[in-house]
Amino acid sequence: MSIAAFRAELGDIPQEDNPRIVQQRSRDHYWYSPVLKAKLDHVTAEVVVSPRSNEEVKTVLRAAFKHGVAITPRGAGTGNYGQAMPLSGGAMLNLMNMDKVLDIKKDRVRAQAGAVLEKLDHETKAAVGGELRFHPSTYRMASLGGFIAGGSGGVGSIRWGGLRALGSILGLKIITCEAEPRELDLVGEDILKVAHAYGTNGIIVEAEMPLTEAHDWIDVMVGFDDFMEAAAFSEKLARQDGILLKELSPCAAPIPEAFFNRHKPYIKEGQSVVLIMVAPVSVEALALFVAHHKGEMLYRADKASDEELKRLPPIYELAWNHTTLRALKVDPSITYLQTRYPTLEHVKKIVDILGDELPMHIEMTRQDGLITYAGLPMVRYTSEERLEEIIRIHEENGCDVFNPHRFTLEEGGMKRTDQKQLEFKKEADPKGILNPGKMIAWENPDFDFSSGKAWLFDGLNPVHAA
Amino acid sequence: MSIAAFRAELGDIPQEDNPRIVQQRSRDHYWYSPVLKAKLDHVTAEVVVSPRSNEEVKTVLRAAFKHGVAITPRGAGTGNYGQAMPLSGGAMLNLMNMDKVLDIKKDRVRAQAGAVLEKLDHETKAAVGGELRFHPSTYRMASLGGFIAGGSGGVGSIRWGGLRALGSILGLKIITCEAEPRELDLVGEDILKVAHAYGTNGIIVEAEMPLTEAHDWIDVMVGFDDFMEAAAFSEKLARQDGILLKELSPCAAPIPEAFFNRHKPYIKEGQSVVLIMVAPVSVEALALFVAHHKGEMLYRADKASDEELKRLPPIYELAWNHTTLRALKVDPSITYLQTRYPTLEHVKKIVDILGDELPMHIEMTRQDGLITYAGLPMVRYTSEERLEEIIRIHEENGCDVFNPHRFTLEEGGMKRTDQKQLEFKKEADPKGILNPGKMIAWENPDFDFSSGKAWLFDGLNPVHAA
Repeated sequence: MSIAAFRAELGDIPQEDNPRIVQQRSRDHYWYSPVLKAKLDHVTAEVVVSPRSNEEVKTVLRAAFKHGVAITPRGAGTGNYGQAMPLSGGAMLNLMNMDKVLDIKKDRVRAQAGAVLEKLDHETKAAVGGELRFHPSTYRMASLGGFIAGGSGGVGSIRWGGLRALGSILGLKIITCEAEPRELDLVGEDILKVAHAYGTNGIIVEAEMPLTEAHDWIDVMVGFDDFMEAAAFSEKLARQDGILLKELSPCAAPIPEAFFNRHKPYIKEGQSVVLIMVAPVSVEALALFVAHHKGEMLYRADKASDEELKRLPPIYELAWNHTTLRALKVDPSITYLQTRYPTLEHVKKIVDILGDELPMHIEMTRQDGLITYAGLPMVRYTSEERLEEIIRIHEENGCDVFNPHRFTLEEGGMKRTDQKQLEFKKEADPKGILNPGKMIAWENPDFDFSSGKAWLFDGLNPVHAA
Repeated sequence: MSIAAFRAELGDIPQEDNPRIVQQRSRDHYWYSPVLKAKLDHVTAEVVVSPRSNEEVKTVLRAAFKHGVAITPRGAGTGNYGQAMPLSGGAMLNLMNMDKVLDIKKDRVRAQAGAVLEKLDHETKAAVGGELRFHPSTYRMASLGGFIAGGSGGVGSIRWGGLRALGSILGLKIITCEAEPRELDLVGEDILKVAHAYGTNGIIVEAEMPLTEAHDWIDVMVGFDDFMEAAAFSEKLARQDGILLKELSPCAAPIPEAFFNRHKPYIKEGQSVVLIMVAPVSVEALALFVAHHKGEMLYRADKASDEELKRLPPIYELAWNHTTLRALKVDPSITYLQTRYPTLEHVKKIVDILGDELPMHIEMTRQDGLITYAGLPMVRYTSEERLEEIIRIHEENGCDVFNPHRFTLEEGGMKRTDQKQLEFKKEADPKGILNPGKMIAWENPDFDFSSGKAWLFDGLNPVHAA
């Protein structure tokens, strides 16, 4: 492969080759994981290319195909699994210049991949009173395309489930990496091939998403002396069909007092808290429910002063992976896991076994129609071996783990590749140039789709393209 | 009590005493039940009084209190349990003249009790793009106050649960029946005292309800050769967090072909159908889901001709108690039950035991955060004894029955009275004049609140007021 020949074919498409800047842009939030940090710290692209239109994306992919240059697509780079890390070097395809909102209807929006989620919601709210069903806690930075390619759900998943749910994405436009790149409009089942595929089988350039009614969500923080009470309250609240929530997350002590710096004045020592976003129409019913369950109403944004509202970050920036982020800022030795607890009893078992080594953080979500404890517990990290042990303890106690310390699609357990996906990649990326090293099924022709041990594969093998 | 003296104090408040008209207005849909039909056929008020304002309601209640005249409040009279039947005669309080929409905000509406639900939605939709979370199948006739006083949920309950859920009603204004009637504004917990109390403890004159975003819901009918396949499909569809539904109801053969007259051309012989209302934003995902589950797409309103749309009733008028209504029009020997099946296996067990004696009709709803099989099976009625046997078969197989063949609050099992409610009635209706005979706990001072055998009580005892 020849980067120079590739670059020479890009015309006036913006390029950046200052090594320091390129390395910066070659990073996502992989450093949440000490395991990924050790493995990926050296990774960098050779150039960042920033097309401004579908035609320019085609130009980039045409040249990449011709010269066998690896292409790693990137939105804001807020992922935590190395999704956007260019394992084989080559070119980083920055899509943030393609940020146009293309069409807003009452119940849906079509935008380019680089549209930032908060800005997108801002526009749809103004135009039709609608907003996205859910968004990651990196709402203010993350792009639509990056969310679809590398995310799974977030704030709003307590009501709408996640991106995996049928109907969560209405359509995608991708560009293939071939001698003559094509635009493909994917709808229906085909969407599932490309969603959460890290851009390995086509570059997402547009997406059409459902909108739901926007509310002036009210941030609420409720305190409990005991974490298990906070968790039980959260499940009961999640089951209240009449109370409209967008976020519901119990965080065990000492997380709130130790890491929620600006909210600290509201939190008593040793208190576990439940983070909530509630619609104005439901806030009084929520207050009644909190009183009934002997929770302490620590903070209600609708009763807060202007000064408080100005000083405090939004509650969603304490939740999801922001919880870990806040902890990391205070204590760099902390990392996290992604888990799923079938019942409250499973949560209790794990909390009892692991105690303060695993400060518990749960996101209540809806999955396949069921209220689900999606865990994002912190881990006081000591070694990779102990981390594996903690994972084993989960699994032995009937709790699922989606390992966030792996950078391939399959190893995290979030995306099971299959023959259909593999065939689609053969069509959309015959040279295997797109985000190489991320899809085990592609790299290893003997890959067993049903294997539970996919994580043993070394995804850092050089791209076998061209 | 003296009706004449009572009437003389009403000034120019409209009164109707033509016995034929009064009897007509003294009826609800109690005749769905052969048991209630036999018991209540003779029931009639002596006069219908139709106040036009809260002040006029106070005038009526002041006079009723003074003269000991029983007052039975009534909306459109679309209830099925004799809720609005004046067991002790006296005056029927018709609230349909009080139908003003008082205040519409983005996420809530306040209206008088007599507002008709469809008209209410029409206004809120035009004003703010919002609609009620759910409504009964008698949407086009039923009043807001009647729904709250005598209903429980309906079309929309698959998403929002029912009226019993905290947050489903934001506020009520009631008028008490005392020497000097008072207006009470109930919020929070106090709402629960009055909701579904048949007007026994205060006359609801205003209600404030949450709004949710209105959609141009699309009617869909899906066919299956086997009812259990239709039921299994319905549960799986209900669990699709990303597909926005307002109605989901599997109906066993021969219900569709025998009773859905205008839809008959779409239905094959022996086919069970699933009735669905889906948001436009989710219709393509639904179509994909139907195909995956080998359902037959029998009808999609978004693909229908203008002529079809004009000819066919809305799908919700095939559902809930309209299913039974349509059957009754064809076969007057049919009645129904209200049941709850914990799982698909419970449904199967009952279907296997009772077969065509109990043509199965289920409304998928959300209850306490769980997808729930709310049964409204038809019963090919032979005798009251056999009906009791069918109820026993349900209970012996772990299925709940809410007996719709009882006219008191307690016997149906929908409303458990308690000391709080009783005390509230003492305050709001000290003479026990309001809808007498409907609250067992009031009529019988020895009533055991925890008794499971409340239905033995004879609610037809004369009112002991005045």
